[in-house]
Amino acid sequence: MRIALDAMGTDRHPAIEVEGAVQALRELPDDFTLILVGDRDRIEAELGRHSDLPRDRLEIVHAPQRIEQGESPAAAVRRKPDSSIVVGLGLQKKGEADAFVSAGSTGAVMAASLLILRPLPGVDRPPVATTLPTAAEPVVLVDAGANVDSKPHHLVQFARLGAIYAHDVLRRSNPRVGLLNIGEEPEKGDELAVEAHGLLRKQPGLNFIGNVEGRDIITGTCDVLVADGFVGNVLLKFYESIAAFFMEILKREQAKSGAKMDLSEIFAALDYTEYGGAPLLGVQGISIICHGGSPPRAIKNAIRVAIRAVETDMVGHMSRELTVPPMNGGGPVEPTMGRLAEGA
Amino acid sequence: MRIALDAMGTDRHPAIEVEGAVQALRELPDDFTLILVGDRDRIEAELGRHSDLPRDRLEIVHAPQRIEQGESPAAAVRRKPDSSIVVGLGLQKKGEADAFVSAGSTGAVMAASLLILRPLPGVDRPPVATTLPTAAEPVVLVDAGANVDSKPHHLVQFARLGAIYAHDVLRRSNPRVGLLNIGEEPEKGDELAVEAHGLLRKQPGLNFIGNVEGRDIITGTCDVLVADGFVGNVLLKFYESIAAFFMEILKREQAKSGAKMDLSEIFAALDYTEYGGAPLLGVQGISIICHGGSPPRAIKNAIRVAIRAVETDMVGHMSRELTVPPMNGGGPVEPTMGRLAEGA
Repeated sequence: MRIALDAMGTDRHPAIEVEGAVQALRELPDDFTLILVGDRDRIEAELGRHSDLPRDRLEIVHAPQRIEQGESPAAAVRRKPDSSIVVGLGLQKKGEADAFVSAGSTGAVMAASLLILRPLPGVDRPPVATTLPTAAEPVVLVDAGANVDSKPHHLVQFARLGAIYAHDVLRRSNPRVGLLNIGEEPEKGDELAVEAHGLLRKQPGLNFIGNVEGRDIITGTCDVLVADGFVGNVLLKFYESIAAFFMEILKREQAKSGAKMDLSEIFAALDYTEYGGAPLLGVQGISIICHGGSPPRAIKNAIRVAIRAVETDMVGHMSRELTVPPMNGGGPVEPTMGRLAEGA
Repeated sequence: MRIALDAMGTDRHPAIEVEGAVQALRELPDDFTLILVGDRDRIEAELGRHSDLPRDRLEIVHAPQRIEQGESPAAAVRRKPDSSIVVGLGLQKKGEADAFVSAGSTGAVMAASLLILRPLPGVDRPPVATTLPTAAEPVVLVDAGANVDSKPHHLVQFARLGAIYAHDVLRRSNPRVGLLNIGEEPEKGDELAVEAHGLLRKQPGLNFIGNVEGRDIITGTCDVLVADGFVGNVLLKFYESIAAFFMEILKREQAKSGAKMDLSEIFAALDYTEYGGAPLLGVQGISIICHGGSPPRAIKNAIRVAIRAVETDMVGHMSRELTVPPMNGGGPVEPTMGRLAEGA
């Protein structure tokens, strides 16, 4: 198995990526090789800082360009064919890699993944899945920001893709799928939520548990939380910022009082680096997006997610599931209609 | 000044309400009287537990019915004319009270306020404003759940109402208004956000600072945060639950380690009871909604908010501001058009 890693993605590339790659090679089972994609000289220089590397499990593919954070994603992808993102995804397209991991511009990784890998048949709008820590098991939030103005049948696709991801990668059996909403009753919510609720209830093979309110996310009532990318993105960014805020006031207060509490333990569960990356689901390949500020550990964990997705044939699983039109009570088949109507 | 207090709203009515009323009479400036609305005998029994009450500043208006949490709000308001919510708001309608405070069913208080007080001219959909603690000053989130499927001109109304509330009640001069969105640039977001951004920029007298992302809420970058009630409600409920969750793991960890940290101080800023109630803005009167699980302190603080809104003539202020059609570059006046089109 070959995992392509964008070596030029993080704010401190390629040092962070190389360190993450080294951790992955040392700590994860050894049935994979890594392809570092980026500036060959800079990558070699970073590798030079590490000794005892299993160089037979490490390749470098040179990519002289880098897509910067501020660039318009679609334009940058077209303008920079030799960027680490475009080259890395191209390896997967050509069958020279099985997955791609990047901490580069989220928009550019999404745009390039759609363009190069293409959506799976039956998927109109590939969503991003993010794993949020809760008081129980982490929950997969899908969509975390790839799509706004979603239609009800898009949310159904998010649900089905999220359930397969939770099953294959997070090892949840029969994952519970909840719809983010502002009330428990089926008739609560906006038009999108009410209609999506009706469709989700009819999906065979989906363990739909109904609406999940904002207050129930943190208690871990479901494995997969379905939402339009607008509210999903607001929620994700708010969650990350509030976790950081709490940690900060705690540290300050602890320093003031001289109390001896192991904060690292308290907040281990809240550390996004544990989950290492958010996959773009529903494309014909594996594309995992990491924070630009990721530490090496997050890169390593994203590689672990990629390996697990390859091992379980997550994409094949999604392809088989999503091309079977879902039941919706004998009426026209929503997802396919939507796809054709939009020409995707 | 006379404040009507629903004595039958909380989960532990009327004990909590009476205790809150007593705290308000003792701790707040003495230029108001309280009208306790509910079951006279039960209220008298609770009052009997307190000595040295200023009974000349306390009235009871009997209301034998109570709207329960599970009831359909609109139906309950029609079916129970002698409920504490309907009677309490009726006092304001008749000019016998200047404001109403209730910890009863949120839906019922909203429905009854719309029906009895009526929206102000120029307001299509009165929103609920909630005060969220941040690392800096608290932020007013509007709408926190009264309206879903909002149109861009509704968000403009939310912004103008929220700014007046922040100015009059929270004493913010020239309050900064932000639009909740998933990116900083004006073209980011869903259709609603993009169009609302364009309208908000054109409002004279509004200190619109642009888009605010989920990660910027907790840093306190604005005084008023404008959102559709769907995302607003998800955010509010998530915030409340995560604050409670953090407090719980902290207490557990502190007990385990025996550390001496003053948790009450750390989290004082995160305590919603400090802000005591969420007003329904843009109705012809003052209607403050509290949590069903409010402690007496939250009731007292909601009374304080009501007093402040009366003192500053917040409703008159809103009425004057909202009936002046906002500028929108010479085109048709959006808010008024919306109001007429919807027959509100």
